Amino acid sequence: MPARPQLTRAARPATITISATNERGEAVPTQIAGEHPLTLYLDKREIVTLMTLGGAPEALAIGYLRNQRLVSRLEDIAAVQVDWETDSVAVTTIRSADDLEERMGKRTVTTGCGQGTMFGDLMEDIDKVALPAEVCLDEDTLYGLLDAVRQHESIYKQAGAVHGCALARGTRILMFVEDIGRHNAVDAIAGQMWLDGLTGEDKIFYTTGRLTSEMVIKTAQMGIPFLVSRSGLTQMGYDLAQRVGMTMIGRSQGKHYLLFTGAERFTRRTPTSFDTESTETQRTQREISR
Amino acid sequence: MPARPQLTRAARPATITISATNERGEAVPTQIAGEHPLTLYLDKREIVTLMTLGGAPEALAIGYLRNQRLVSRLEDIAAVQVDWETDSVAVTTIRSADDLEERMGKRTVTTGCGQGTMFGDLMEDIDKVALPAEVCLDEDTLYGLLDAVRQHESIYKQAGAVHGCALARGTRILMFVEDIGRHNAVDAIAGQMWLDGLTGEDKIFYTTGRLTSEMVIKTAQMGIPFLVSRSGLTQMGYDLAQRVGMTMIGRSQGKHYLLFTGAERFTRRTPTSFDTESTETQRTQREISR
Repeated sequence: MPARPQLTRAARPATITISATNERGEAVPTQIAGEHPLTLYLDKREIVTLMTLGGAPEALAIGYLRNQRLVSRLEDIAAVQVDWETDSVAVTTIRSADDLEERMGKRTVTTGCGQGTMFGDLMEDIDKVALPAEVCLDEDTLYGLLDAVRQHESIYKQAGAVHGCALARGTRILMFVEDIGRHNAVDAIAGQMWLDGLTGEDKIFYTTGRLTSEMVIKTAQMGIPFLVSRSGLTQMGYDLAQRVGMTMIGRSQGKHYLLFTGAERFTRRTPTSFDTESTETQRTQREISR
Repeated sequence: MPARPQLTRAARPATITISATNERGEAVPTQIAGEHPLTLYLDKREIVTLMTLGGAPEALAIGYLRNQRLVSRLEDIAAVQVDWETDSVAVTTIRSADDLEERMGKRTVTTGCGQGTMFGDLMEDIDKVALPAEVCLDEDTLYGLLDAVRQHESIYKQAGAVHGCALARGTRILMFVEDIGRHNAVDAIAGQMWLDGLTGEDKIFYTTGRLTSEMVIKTAQMGIPFLVSRSGLTQMGYDLAQRVGMTMIGRSQGKHYLLFTGAERFTRRTPTSFDTESTETQRTQREISR
């Protein structure tokens, strides 16, 4: 077991309650999501200010550095210290990335996405990703996972204004992170996966957010073959999922979903004898759609 | 009338159609939102790669530079040339920002929000913003605007996966921009306001997205006193709206809304004689909530 970095445990309360006025003129106590600036320092160098819910700031800092390729393995991190007095997190490394200066230089020109991705670097590496071919997801497991997500206690239900991400094995949710920005939620899961020594090949990544290029790239970088979302898809998310061979499912809620890519890893429920009549049609249509 | 920059008109098709497979095994033609990298060059210097729907790339480039404080007025821009062959937009200025190097340096350390704001710079200037006190919004106008937004043809209805922003005067929508990231949609409106010579003091800004710190800051910078959203609010969005004295309304859809801040600019509908009975209660509750 590799050495774990020293960590603070400085989660902030997720919501506060304010008074709003509704259309009937009534004062309505309303829970709203926390939002806090958190300035990240890597070996005393200021890197970024993230606006975060603050629920998992240590995992967020680690995952941010991981996904931005500023730290290449957990063992290189000596300590992660969050201090809400100064709204900062200080990450100390054992060995700094040799090319940090170069990476930071490149960083300036590659901010993208909803305006926040290391687009250039990530795209360069995407073709090195090899997702496992032999793993499978069946429809019952998908429905079970959607149900587990639905039942999960969430800040969204209380306060809205957050995106949620889950890491699951089968129907079991291993982590669930919500944050103001979906980038932060994904990064925090990437950080926690490192901390828990988890790899991606037998996992499912669930997000409430949209399936954009950035979401697909980050899921691929984590080595996760399945990406499931309640929301829709963008053209580049689609192109990238095809390119890396990811199984991607969108618009999934209750017993509905759309399978977009990677059908070879997905098994639809075997029809029962009651609906044998339509089975042939379904099979034919399924062949067409592949 | 100040000189307008030379502009290309290089909007991209908003959606493409792919084939997905639904839970019945049927092939479903599905419209998905376009997503394209667009690398912005300012006087031949590479600034950023934005992931965009591409519906208003010229306005987006101008608004991005405006909101990032890299260009201080439209008259300084000589030309904006979008070239989708190279996925780039070249902005040529008449007089570069003198302190561009300094601003660009600062930029590296201040990427924030859902990971994309010039947090430091924006916060420094927020106290200089003075929103007009004498303008008013009444409930009927709000409902009319919500109805106009609902009826507006939108990519969201076709393909999902986008955020929409509108600039309105009363119930009249002056601009409606959708994009992959809500930052882009806001920036494109800021750019188009410059191009159309519009100021913010008598306008309403509507967004489908959440009322985060960044949304409040950008609306305030545009000088717009009213911010309306279908979605919820974050703590820092709330704090900032109070600080700049903005009238902010969330969770607004149909005939429902929550008035969060700036009640002095908002007039609730006068109750009709039919609901006189409850008027006193409403008044009392309204006083409390103020």
